[in-house]
Amino acid sequence: MSNSSRCAACKSLRRKCPQDCVLAPYFPSNNPQRFSWVHKIFGASNIAKMLQQLPVELRGEAADCMAMEAYLRVENPVYGSVGIIYQYQQQIIEVQNEIIKINGEIAVYNALLQHQQLQQHQDSFFSTDNDFNL
Amino acid sequence: MSNSSRCAACKSLRRKCPQDCVLAPYFPSNNPQRFSWVHKIFGASNIAKMLQQLPVELRGEAADCMAMEAYLRVENPVYGSVGIIYQYQQQIIEVQNEIIKINGEIAVYNALLQHQQLQQHQDSFFSTDNDFNL
Repeated sequence: MSNSSRCAACKSLRRKCPQDCVLAPYFPSNNPQRFSWVHKIFGASNIAKMLQQLPVELRGEAADCMAMEAYLRVENPVYGSVGIIYQYQQQIIEVQNEIIKINGEIAVYNALLQHQQLQQHQDSFFSTDNDFNL
Repeated sequence: MSNSSRCAACKSLRRKCPQDCVLAPYFPSNNPQRFSWVHKIFGASNIAKMLQQLPVELRGEAADCMAMEAYLRVENPVYGSVGIIYQYQQQIIEVQNEIIKINGEIAVYNALLQHQQLQQHQDSFFSTDNDFNL
């Protein structure tokens, strides 16, 4: 890759972008922000090392996830992506509690229905009984 | 801090642990694994830099979150903590769908109850009517 078309990583690090640059496919020059996040949080050499340890077909997904992790840590320097995990855990607990509540309501409906059915049977029984008496 | 009681970071980096070591409070010597995760993923100097940029009272929480993020990336080198986020997003969608389904069941119960109540009123109405006829 010529200097004029260096990837975002090589451009940021002010170096030549070799043809076999491990970062170039995942950090294109048109998205310098994406590289700046991972550079700040993981460091360029760490990112390159982590990608190189993966099979080529998984590197794109890994780079996307690392970019998201880095972005979340830049946005929230205390909790990072774990903040989202905590938030979702809380949401799952709330939704599960809602299911328990709704299942309780269903149990009440079930009991009401059974009660009404029983009452209907009793009503029709006594009504027949009365007819006999008349 | 003397060499004999170096923190996990200084021990791993084979250096003296200064009294004001920024990593010592969060990476104690009795948990070398915790430091090895963040060292592998973020790098020791990056971790120290990120902690130093935070107020002291937030550093403990931040170190815990970074340790968790690093652990998740070591365990899952493609998705890392984002894998858990995806998993929870899927779980939330499933639980929300379950709530929609259960709310549908409640609507059916409601309709059944109203139908039964209406029938009961009708039954008692006709029963009275018959009494008049008799």
